[in-house]
Amino acid sequence: MHTQLNFEELRPVACGESKADLLLVNSQVINVFTGEIVKAAVAVKGGYIAGVGDYSLGQEIIDLHGSFLLPGLIDSHIHIESSMLTPEAFARTAVPHGTTAVLADPHEIVNVLGLDGWRYMVDSSQGLPVDFFWQVPSCVPATNMETSGGNIGPTEVKQALDIFPQSPALAEMMNYPGVINGQESVLNLIKLAHQMNLLIEGHAPGLQGYALNAYAAAGCSSDHECTTREETLEKLRLGFRILIREGSAARNLLEILPLINLNNYHRCSFCSDDRHPAHLLTEGHMDHILRKAVCSGFSAIQAIQMATINPALHYQLKARGAIAPGYLADLVIVDNLKDITVQQVYKQGRLAACDGKCLVAPTTFGNAGISSSVIIPNVEGQLRLIAPHGAQRVRVIEIIPGQILTRSETMSVQAALNDPTVSKLAVVERHGRNGNIALGLVKGFGLQRGALASSVAHDSHNLIIVGQDETSMQIAALKVAEMGGGMAVVDGDQVIAALALPVAGLMSPCPAAEVATGHENLELAAYKLGCHLPAPFMTLSFLSLPVIPELRLTDQGLVDVNLFKLVDMWIS
Amino acid sequence: MHTQLNFEELRPVACGESKADLLLVNSQVINVFTGEIVKAAVAVKGGYIAGVGDYSLGQEIIDLHGSFLLPGLIDSHIHIESSMLTPEAFARTAVPHGTTAVLADPHEIVNVLGLDGWRYMVDSSQGLPVDFFWQVPSCVPATNMETSGGNIGPTEVKQALDIFPQSPALAEMMNYPGVINGQESVLNLIKLAHQMNLLIEGHAPGLQGYALNAYAAAGCSSDHECTTREETLEKLRLGFRILIREGSAARNLLEILPLINLNNYHRCSFCSDDRHPAHLLTEGHMDHILRKAVCSGFSAIQAIQMATINPALHYQLKARGAIAPGYLADLVIVDNLKDITVQQVYKQGRLAACDGKCLVAPTTFGNAGISSSVIIPNVEGQLRLIAPHGAQRVRVIEIIPGQILTRSETMSVQAALNDPTVSKLAVVERHGRNGNIALGLVKGFGLQRGALASSVAHDSHNLIIVGQDETSMQIAALKVAEMGGGMAVVDGDQVIAALALPVAGLMSPCPAAEVATGHENLELAAYKLGCHLPAPFMTLSFLSLPVIPELRLTDQGLVDVNLFKLVDMWIS
Repeated sequence: MHTQLNFEELRPVACGESKADLLLVNSQVINVFTGEIVKAAVAVKGGYIAGVGDYSLGQEIIDLHGSFLLPGLIDSHIHIESSMLTPEAFARTAVPHGTTAVLADPHEIVNVLGLDGWRYMVDSSQGLPVDFFWQVPSCVPATNMETSGGNIGPTEVKQALDIFPQSPALAEMMNYPGVINGQESVLNLIKLAHQMNLLIEGHAPGLQGYALNAYAAAGCSSDHECTTREETLEKLRLGFRILIREGSAARNLLEILPLINLNNYHRCSFCSDDRHPAHLLTEGHMDHILRKAVCSGFSAIQAIQMATINPALHYQLKARGAIAPGYLADLVIVDNLKDITVQQVYKQGRLAACDGKCLVAPTTFGNAGISSSVIIPNVEGQLRLIAPHGAQRVRVIEIIPGQILTRSETMSVQAALNDPTVSKLAVVERHGRNGNIALGLVKGFGLQRGALASSVAHDSHNLIIVGQDETSMQIAALKVAEMGGGMAVVDGDQVIAALALPVAGLMSPCPAAEVATGHENLELAAYKLGCHLPAPFMTLSFLSLPVIPELRLTDQGLVDVNLFKLVDMWIS
Repeated sequence: MHTQLNFEELRPVACGESKADLLLVNSQVINVFTGEIVKAAVAVKGGYIAGVGDYSLGQEIIDLHGSFLLPGLIDSHIHIESSMLTPEAFARTAVPHGTTAVLADPHEIVNVLGLDGWRYMVDSSQGLPVDFFWQVPSCVPATNMETSGGNIGPTEVKQALDIFPQSPALAEMMNYPGVINGQESVLNLIKLAHQMNLLIEGHAPGLQGYALNAYAAAGCSSDHECTTREETLEKLRLGFRILIREGSAARNLLEILPLINLNNYHRCSFCSDDRHPAHLLTEGHMDHILRKAVCSGFSAIQAIQMATINPALHYQLKARGAIAPGYLADLVIVDNLKDITVQQVYKQGRLAACDGKCLVAPTTFGNAGISSSVIIPNVEGQLRLIAPHGAQRVRVIEIIPGQILTRSETMSVQAALNDPTVSKLAVVERHGRNGNIALGLVKGFGLQRGALASSVAHDSHNLIIVGQDETSMQIAALKVAEMGGGMAVVDGDQVIAALALPVAGLMSPCPAAEVATGHENLELAAYKLGCHLPAPFMTLSFLSLPVIPELRLTDQGLVDVNLFKLVDMWIS
């Protein structure tokens, strides 16, 4: 949707000599440069703002009757795949909430499909009412203790930039131990990023002191993992741009905001990181963050700056984040600065959304070029857990309710296998690489019977299954495979809910409302089986992420994250 | 002097595992990200900052006893040639005042020598304790009503970037009427700048309303010509970065500063534009601006931000403008934040200045590659002003004391030629192009006898001579030519003062103190001849600048700047 600025076309409009395509009069413009609200007319030509001031000539003249005009909102860090929506469905859902650009890290799909996944995201996000700035994933796979479909090294980074040269950054450098300890492969990526003039995005939960200094010295420029004010202040002082996160899983806004003031807000932006489709539909997106900030007593104008000009400057996004001559006519209309209810959204001068509805016609891109990515070995009889001779005790993953962290527990084999609060867990390699199947035990998932299976399992997205009996687990696994990816809830030999995610096993080609309903049905079905976790499939998807302590199961086996190595399940 | 960051070298120092090259302990660090003063040790390795915090290992450990540590100061817009110093002499004079980088527009030398002048500035500024970011001049020559030595069009811009690829910008687009009126050659340059990812620097004195909107829409991103608060606010609102100017000629700081607050200061920087050698030596450079700002009641920390991180961000100068890991170790030590007296300056971790003295050994670059640029026609008998038959009245340039603006006056021929307050003026083409000689009259210069000549005459720098008699004028012109450029004061057949500026007729290869003394002697000599203007040679140099109203003399004749055309001197 993004055409180049044509100054010859803007010039006579700016000079007040010829008609704007669109003239918005009687607006109260949020001026992100001065922090003021300025009454003005905004003249738009060819998708760009020609002038802000005393204009009167327009093909189409819209009287805003004193409504507020904001620059289009920018999410400074998001994984689109977490919404289970394609870029198009995401855009159609987000634009009515005022979002016109996102900085997106597609590391989920790249873990599955490598550069084919990157190409899909780039290609499928053309011509949409939201502009996607794709960042090149830096940590695919996240560790060498799991089997991913894709693999990103220096060669792939260069290829990714050939496909999408406007990429602003190497996406979140999650392997901070690798940076701090000077791991060669990590240093090579960092060097390459510096050479290629890419920003390096950070991800440094809880890092401080010497280690944080080293991470900063490497050029890691931002952080979206701050959960406390102390952590935020230390990172601000060391030069990190802070992306304050308020998503579906992690919500850090209200903790951090009291630290933010006129002296440091220009180093901060807002991001959602992960956003579920139901939350997008009910709460909103960046508008929700603004609303929440303002409700907490934070200045509306500074909040708007943090969702517009601040990320635009950090990511050097040209002509974005402000309402001024030469900037893109990405404009959001709200009638007050308290509840920030988005009324209309203009994308490059065209009305893209009105009263919560996207007005842009759908494309027919769908899942073009994406074939089924779920290739699993024969699981029949392979999901049965048998204690080897001589095993006395067994390592069990224990869920901590409400947290992504897990605890590493050991139990006697006898107790574990007979404890009704302990479920069976399986991870099946699904990229057609090696047919690995790993088994484990998880305590606290809450199932009384049946099984859940999902092809969304961070970060390498193998097939993960939790269940009480082998039959349910096997049928759930086969159901997900049959759908080419997705999520299923099975009770005995009955599939009681299923959501197909045929795009890399991560995303649905359907609109957000359908996906949200499908996902809600899955959760209701899980609840019927006795699971009362707040987000059963999210919890399941994190059980295989071997970078968050303490114990995880990948297709290669149990990972003790604190030791950062594979460990035996059975202890003799 | 600028080597690349080597993270492998920084890493163990940042991690507190190995010794810094230099450790500054007990410092109060100005944190430009948070606006705080933070007590910390700063560890430097390989010219970069490895860590800021609780460090104790260093080859060399310096105790700052609570002194303040500032990032190296950055001048956001300067013409080095106006100091009459070469880049080296400038750097040696500026670094003791805390300057470690400048954004410089070499349009004076490029008007004389074209790309040879550009290359000279680039080559002669290597390995100095100040880093020079050269911007490609956009308006050479300033008009087509004068003869310059150089000429910059799109081809030359590309060649300039081949010579100095790190150039951040197309320098000040002074031809704002060309932008606003859509002059083709100007639009082509603007398009090229956008294509080549160059910032476009602005210069828009007094521009407002529609015209200012058009100038902004073209992508002109900054302005250093603001003289009032109203003008500054309008430009800020339209997205211009404001470079608040406090130089030798124009001093706008105290007028504009009361407008600047926490909401808008991050859009502002400081610049000197033109700085005379005597002022550099006596008042200082960026330290002088900070001092003046603080004296006026402005926050020292915000002022420091405006001289460090703000220009670094605007010009996307990597690793500059802050004291943080991964940043260049360009550091300034001052013992208090009131009089901002610079004690020591570290350039990339090496002590470059102490107690006002530059400690870096001089280079031997001198004026390598620059041959004499003053090639004039035979002036004998050519400077005599004779009224043509039938001429009744004559146009006279009238000086307005204390201003660069002139008035266009008409007088009867008889009165003009007999008025002792009217001097003769001549401009002699000196680039060896066409041997033009143009004559005129100027009222209010104040000479009672003798003549002044100079090869510094904005912007095409032809030879300009003002005088009371033809002999003095001729001898002054020949003296300047003989020196290969410079300034001379002549009384009859006696040269009573002269300063050689053999580098393009603009700069001296001597140190600042010599140049300042030489220039002072010229002024004293001019005063002896009766001229009591505050800066006779500066006034003279602007009499040929055909972009500032109302009447000017170039080698092609009299220019009525309001009509923007050549006009006849004589009116019949």
